[in-house]
Amino acid sequence: MKLEPQWITGFVDGEGCFHVGISKHPEMTSGFQVLPEFTVVQHERDVQVLHALKAFFKCGVVRVNHGDRMAYRVRGQKNLSECVVPFFLAHPLKTKKRLDFEKFRRVILMMERGEHLTAEGLEEIRQIAEQMNRGQPR
Amino acid sequence: MKLEPQWITGFVDGEGCFHVGISKHPEMTSGFQVLPEFTVVQHERDVQVLHALKAFFKCGVVRVNHGDRMAYRVRGQKNLSECVVPFFLAHPLKTKKRLDFEKFRRVILMMERGEHLTAEGLEEIRQIAEQMNRGQPR
Repeated sequence: MKLEPQWITGFVDGEGCFHVGISKHPEMTSGFQVLPEFTVVQHERDVQVLHALKAFFKCGVVRVNHGDRMAYRVRGQKNLSECVVPFFLAHPLKTKKRLDFEKFRRVILMMERGEHLTAEGLEEIRQIAEQMNRGQPR
Repeated sequence: MKLEPQWITGFVDGEGCFHVGISKHPEMTSGFQVLPEFTVVQHERDVQVLHALKAFFKCGVVRVNHGDRMAYRVRGQKNLSECVVPFFLAHPLKTKKRLDFEKFRRVILMMERGEHLTAEGLEEIRQIAEQMNRGQPR
């Protein structure tokens, strides 16, 4: 299955999620780990679409989400900043999910500069993350 | 907001619904009305996307669905057979929603031939409608 960029943008406008997780991690200098991820969840009957996304972006994994739902998931600063972010800059989202993407991108840029390793940077990321994925009643 | 066909297909693969309703209608010869409809539901914050779909297809309405959810909805055999069905024949869906679209199209074709007005045709449509929108756990 070959996907066209505009199809991907449309599908992600509907089904995609840009999320920034922050979890305690004693081995990190700051005590916390910042974990941005891009996910698309589908019923297992459409797992082939998730594999096509993985083939398109050339990164990420397809895994069980929960029950009969599967997820395509991209983690890792390099994957996100080299594959996912440039794609959605070139093919902008049309729904308000674009605002989540812009916050997501800000966090990735901060991480590229190592700002998530400082207390101030971590606090700023926490505030950005809190403002994401609102108004999307799922 | 200008929408590209592939974006629409991707978005509808995620968010669209092809549905055939059958309701009692004493004024119809068969006693029943067959009501096919194409809908896309979004949170009200993205109502502009629904208006862009309406502008693209040049038919249908944007209405409150329920609560803070809005719907773009196309009904009417002429709108469906002249605008919606040809679009998705030219730009095929990539998820299993395509199977719902194919059943939807079969019903529209039967209605064009007036088969929904006969008892046999109505029964066949009822069976097709029963098989639609399964496996989509929403």
